Amino acid sequence: MGNKERKMSLNLFLSVLGHHESSWRYPDAPVEKAKNFSYYAELAKKAENAKMDAIFLADRTSTSPQSVKNGATGFFEPTTLLSGLAAVTEKIGLIGTVSTSFNEPYNVARRFSSLDFLSNGRAGWNIITSGTDEEAQNFNLEQIPNHARRYQRAKEFLEVAVKLWDSWEDNAILANKETGVFADSQKVHEINHKGEFFQVRGPLNIPRSPQKRPVLVQAGTSENGKEFAAIYAEAIFTAQQSFKDARAFYQDIKQRVINNGRNPEQVKILPGICPIIGETEEEAIERESKMQELINFDHSLLKLSNRVGVDLTSAPLDEPFPELPELDEIQGHKSRTQLIVELAQRENLTLRQVLIRLGGGRGHYTIAATPKKIADVLEYWFLNGAADGFNIMPQVMNHDFERFVQLVIPELQRRGLFRTEYTGDTLREHFGLTIPSNQFLSV
Amino acid sequence: MGNKERKMSLNLFLSVLGHHESSWRYPDAPVEKAKNFSYYAELAKKAENAKMDAIFLADRTSTSPQSVKNGATGFFEPTTLLSGLAAVTEKIGLIGTVSTSFNEPYNVARRFSSLDFLSNGRAGWNIITSGTDEEAQNFNLEQIPNHARRYQRAKEFLEVAVKLWDSWEDNAILANKETGVFADSQKVHEINHKGEFFQVRGPLNIPRSPQKRPVLVQAGTSENGKEFAAIYAEAIFTAQQSFKDARAFYQDIKQRVINNGRNPEQVKILPGICPIIGETEEEAIERESKMQELINFDHSLLKLSNRVGVDLTSAPLDEPFPELPELDEIQGHKSRTQLIVELAQRENLTLRQVLIRLGGGRGHYTIAATPKKIADVLEYWFLNGAADGFNIMPQVMNHDFERFVQLVIPELQRRGLFRTEYTGDTLREHFGLTIPSNQFLSV
Repeated sequence: MGNKERKMSLNLFLSVLGHHESSWRYPDAPVEKAKNFSYYAELAKKAENAKMDAIFLADRTSTSPQSVKNGATGFFEPTTLLSGLAAVTEKIGLIGTVSTSFNEPYNVARRFSSLDFLSNGRAGWNIITSGTDEEAQNFNLEQIPNHARRYQRAKEFLEVAVKLWDSWEDNAILANKETGVFADSQKVHEINHKGEFFQVRGPLNIPRSPQKRPVLVQAGTSENGKEFAAIYAEAIFTAQQSFKDARAFYQDIKQRVINNGRNPEQVKILPGICPIIGETEEEAIERESKMQELINFDHSLLKLSNRVGVDLTSAPLDEPFPELPELDEIQGHKSRTQLIVELAQRENLTLRQVLIRLGGGRGHYTIAATPKKIADVLEYWFLNGAADGFNIMPQVMNHDFERFVQLVIPELQRRGLFRTEYTGDTLREHFGLTIPSNQFLSV
Repeated sequence: MGNKERKMSLNLFLSVLGHHESSWRYPDAPVEKAKNFSYYAELAKKAENAKMDAIFLADRTSTSPQSVKNGATGFFEPTTLLSGLAAVTEKIGLIGTVSTSFNEPYNVARRFSSLDFLSNGRAGWNIITSGTDEEAQNFNLEQIPNHARRYQRAKEFLEVAVKLWDSWEDNAILANKETGVFADSQKVHEINHKGEFFQVRGPLNIPRSPQKRPVLVQAGTSENGKEFAAIYAEAIFTAQQSFKDARAFYQDIKQRVINNGRNPEQVKILPGICPIIGETEEEAIERESKMQELINFDHSLLKLSNRVGVDLTSAPLDEPFPELPELDEIQGHKSRTQLIVELAQRENLTLRQVLIRLGGGRGHYTIAATPKKIADVLEYWFLNGAADGFNIMPQVMNHDFERFVQLVIPELQRRGLFRTEYTGDTLREHFGLTIPSNQFLSV
């Protein structure tokens, strides 16, 4: 057994009705309630009562008439929804996804500082570069910029954002009513950034926030993605189909972080886990089958086509998984495409079988089992160098999240693997991350 | 007397510690609390208990070491703060300022739809074009685009945003669990906008929100601004120095709205009013003098220079107000500059006197008086064709807002000029605005 003092991190990856693509069709899935803030507030409070580290919201910036024909839509944008949740929770972290490809760093840095103030230090930013033409077409482009170019922009975006977060020193505000000096102007810095993509004078118009900057989260596992993560990420969300893959990824990232001169304990690696939880193994398997029956394969094919950037909508379902272009030519979501191709090859799956496997969690690890069995898996990955914690992705939100907090978390707590009380107030404290230093601080 | 059935609208224009530029120096101004969400939550709840129509947040997207030296800073970005306030209030409208010059319409349309869902129909967007080089320099530009160009972009921005808000028909969501059809794809529309500034495919990735679109608010009173308002605005915030000016503006706008084929009652004109409220006239005047003593004229000059886009920092304070370039050459905040020049000329003021006049509300109407006197002014403007309501801008938040809700609002209620209970749930209902039709709806 590993070090029992070390605790795992657990985030609730909050999708609307569940991570299974057919979760909205589950008989008692509360489709109507999902329009209301109160639905998300209840989930967030439930996660907080269970002492989970954070709520995580994914994002994409497009949809289409075709994709909502058979698939549920969201009703909220991450930074606004998390700001609402900040007001009704006290401890749980709030991690939102925003793309570097279709935003300006001044606006994004500012919204996360605002969220960090709103939540008293619980903000996290999941940095994505977006990967589809459909999204690009909502932002004055015909095609998504190529993968390498997107990461170049992302790197400069982060460089600017970090400068902006550092542009106010901690003790810049004096608020001296007698002298009328509000801030020490020597401690508020123009950043005067002039780069390839951005030209930003600064300072940010919000002082340094409780966490100094939001926790920086990243998910891509392509070469570009891993290189980016080694520089900036403080937490990494990742999709891994097996313990073996997860362990290899974990070791690879930690080594890259070390090579980059950073402390590997300051980068938390959190694979996604998509559970269907049954009181018995049979019940879990039965619900898994039920979910598979609800899959609309036309819809699944459309989603897969969007994800890999190749039109597969007329490919035969019961033939082997089709050949895709070389990975170097894929400009979309490169790492997820690689995972899917490898999965199909390794297990010799038909297209239909791949779609079923992806249905439960879009390539994340799926498991239909009892609470004890699920706790066993999390423990094994956690204690054997494959994870620092997990992004929990309940396949059917109202069933599997309820059982996760009622049955799996207490089991993990009994085993000493998960906290029974919060030991801090900020997301940095929950994740065990240090306070970033300020590049403008004179030594 | 006018029609007693007609009620005025009252918004709280929420600045950090008050609208007087020295409000943070007032002895008991709670500077420390202003970092905390709870401070704003209390103010919003107080405004809601008083049955006010909306909270309004202004915005600008820059600051500088010089301007925070003697002036208080904000800690929040409007859409995030309003999302937090949505979670702790139930009725009051939530109007936030976002610039069309430094954002993409897809992102802005989406955040306001999200806020409208979060608040169950209480979102409003105050549309600005921004007016300073300092702001432009945070967004890859050296200089702010010229006034006409900014309004061209704003018009197309609105055209795109409205198309996006219309891209889902009201009854597009079917959520039929049996058939697996989530949405009627015939009722979800690509917008395929291709214009001079923007190219946006759509649809929005958020369905049609409770109010269909946020209430559209506008403030500029330049020619471009008034023309824009006549097309899009449902409420207009305006700075007017006198009843006479306010009335002329009111008549001008209503006529333009009529000329544009719209119902003038569907455009609410709400001048800003900056009160200092005393139980006696003497007490009010005394507090006004006290506030004036707290002015730092270096800071005021810097603010004025930023506002008009002309460096006045070395102009002599006790000489007549300096000559400014012709209005046609001013590319910054044109209408406010005009107001300031006219004020100085009309009353033959020195630069210092102008700065004192602007200190209380940046060009908005200031008044230091008893609650009854203030109610008299509001009643007079409201009943005599100068206003449909007011943006209340307390000069010192903790004193003047408290007295406004405790003393002025009850007086207005006694006179039958302001509601005693909310009669609706949405901001559109509070303002008496109709539900917008959908351009994509087949007749």
